[in-house]
Amino acid sequence: MFTEANDGGERTPVEKLGEFKLIKLLTEKFSFRNTETILGTGDDAAILEIPHGQKQVVSTDFLCEGIHFNLGYVPLKHLGYKAAIVNFSDITAMNARPTHLLMGIAASDRFPVEAFTEIYDGIALACEQYGVDLIGGDTTSSKSGLILSGTAIGYTHHPVCRDGAKEHDLLVVSGDLGGAYMGLQLLEREHRVYLANPAMQPEMEGWEYVLRRQLKPEARTDVKTVLEELGVIPTSMIDVSDGLASEILHLSEQSQVGFRVYEEKIPTDYETDAAAEELGLNAMTAVMNGGEDYEILFTISQVDFEKIKDRKEFSIIGHATPKEAGNTLILRGTGTEVPLRAQGWTAF
Amino acid sequence: MFTEANDGGERTPVEKLGEFKLIKLLTEKFSFRNTETILGTGDDAAILEIPHGQKQVVSTDFLCEGIHFNLGYVPLKHLGYKAAIVNFSDITAMNARPTHLLMGIAASDRFPVEAFTEIYDGIALACEQYGVDLIGGDTTSSKSGLILSGTAIGYTHHPVCRDGAKEHDLLVVSGDLGGAYMGLQLLEREHRVYLANPAMQPEMEGWEYVLRRQLKPEARTDVKTVLEELGVIPTSMIDVSDGLASEILHLSEQSQVGFRVYEEKIPTDYETDAAAEELGLNAMTAVMNGGEDYEILFTISQVDFEKIKDRKEFSIIGHATPKEAGNTLILRGTGTEVPLRAQGWTAF
Repeated sequence: MFTEANDGGERTPVEKLGEFKLIKLLTEKFSFRNTETILGTGDDAAILEIPHGQKQVVSTDFLCEGIHFNLGYVPLKHLGYKAAIVNFSDITAMNARPTHLLMGIAASDRFPVEAFTEIYDGIALACEQYGVDLIGGDTTSSKSGLILSGTAIGYTHHPVCRDGAKEHDLLVVSGDLGGAYMGLQLLEREHRVYLANPAMQPEMEGWEYVLRRQLKPEARTDVKTVLEELGVIPTSMIDVSDGLASEILHLSEQSQVGFRVYEEKIPTDYETDAAAEELGLNAMTAVMNGGEDYEILFTISQVDFEKIKDRKEFSIIGHATPKEAGNTLILRGTGTEVPLRAQGWTAF
Repeated sequence: MFTEANDGGERTPVEKLGEFKLIKLLTEKFSFRNTETILGTGDDAAILEIPHGQKQVVSTDFLCEGIHFNLGYVPLKHLGYKAAIVNFSDITAMNARPTHLLMGIAASDRFPVEAFTEIYDGIALACEQYGVDLIGGDTTSSKSGLILSGTAIGYTHHPVCRDGAKEHDLLVVSGDLGGAYMGLQLLEREHRVYLANPAMQPEMEGWEYVLRRQLKPEARTDVKTVLEELGVIPTSMIDVSDGLASEILHLSEQSQVGFRVYEEKIPTDYETDAAAEELGLNAMTAVMNGGEDYEILFTISQVDFEKIKDRKEFSIIGHATPKEAGNTLILRGTGTEVPLRAQGWTAF
């Protein structure tokens, strides 16, 4: 985890530096790792030399203060890291490797140069860890909140969309789910305690995993690599950003199939279950409707079952049915069947 | 010009529709014009098939309420159009043709579905007029103002950066300058009048050109075509978004040359001059520091002078000198030399 924002430090007003010097300051620490990158920031646009034979995928995503994050408990460096990661995750969900990032930041006047620098430190760390080049962006003031707008670019020989799942295909998810939502609940509880009594120390010990899932999520770029090694091309793919239920319904609608999903097969970390118990919440609610796990949900043909069944990275959680059968969750223990509904997170 | 926003019309809350249905509603009217486009909106990312042998250029730009526009006098359809155009202009300024656009919109809850639709109507019109495919975006609520975040992509065989100007090169600008700033001054004057007395009719007659320059600017995508026809490859290039002075200083700094610029050669429209007189302002201030003209400023080798000198689209306004000579404006009539300074528009 990162250290907290240095609140006691210097505060240089952005107007003292000016927009162009600010951009220069923020971007000069970025070096290029991809041969496609001919020119990065500093001109009207970046220039890329395109690899022949691959397809390019492009995605854009907002993070807005008060909607997607609360500066009361999210350090700026984490925020920069996460803003990069959520865009890398979209690229990963097309079965592509993220290679380039553009990041726009709109912030109110109260944001000093040092705040921009912290955000960019997080972006730089994400770019370094994922081998991505920052090639552009825009910084401006906004009348109030902080908004980060990222655009990511990647390449792949085999893009995988949401519309290719077929009846009998297996539904597979990477990693474990629900942790990011539980981390958020803990952060919000501690923030309420802090607001009521600023002298109280936050009780975060023992919750490192779920807090990291919320504050410093990772994009599962390894999924593409592993699937390639196994010789598996998924039939459909999406990332779990809005909760598992919502993502399954997207695959269902766009592929024109139904899904049967088995609760007992859905992977959760023990810390997610423990946090749910501590907070009096249902872990499955966090999984289904919590969101922000950034795991990869995909379908594979049944003929690939043997290749994938022993891989620790993946859990087979269900299978595709005819569309008319709808989407069903089979509950643990009782075997009760309930219709799968998205009550997921929404930005509106 | 567009008609005004339909304030008396329906107001459907976005939450009634949901984010995904909203995106579907907004993007279903877009068709694809470029063979590169394999997949647009609706998945985790768009997919592009890249043309072999060309380079790709990518740029991103914000428009923020209260900073870049005032909803008191900017119709939403114009705003969508302009948000697309400013991104096309960045691509144009690399000597590239814009082909793809991603547009993120963050708006407060008070924004009904109909407001999004109007913005997208403007984006659709811009895409149609410029042969650009909308391939992605993000809609979310923001805690305060309206923010549009565009990312444009284009292609070119010969990207032109800001750093290639050489001593003796000629400095050339397309179209005329200062109009957008004068349009803004008129809009702000009428808005003040309206706020003081809503029954007053705005006095806009006779100012159609400068108002259009502000409200519905165009990207000079024709410049690339004309230069190709003439067999001219510019040595450096930038678009005039922040005022002529600021852009000249960018070319100067990045190319390591100075410039001598002749006030009498700088093109302005008669309506810009008339508006300046009516408002008691200096037209040259609008040209130098006003911004938002979205004309293209570029340098060419002196050997290309004959090819370009009779073209109505272009004005030769100066030439490059050794860096040590600095940047100088030679005033009309007197020939007085003054140092060129940017007091241009700033987002901070």
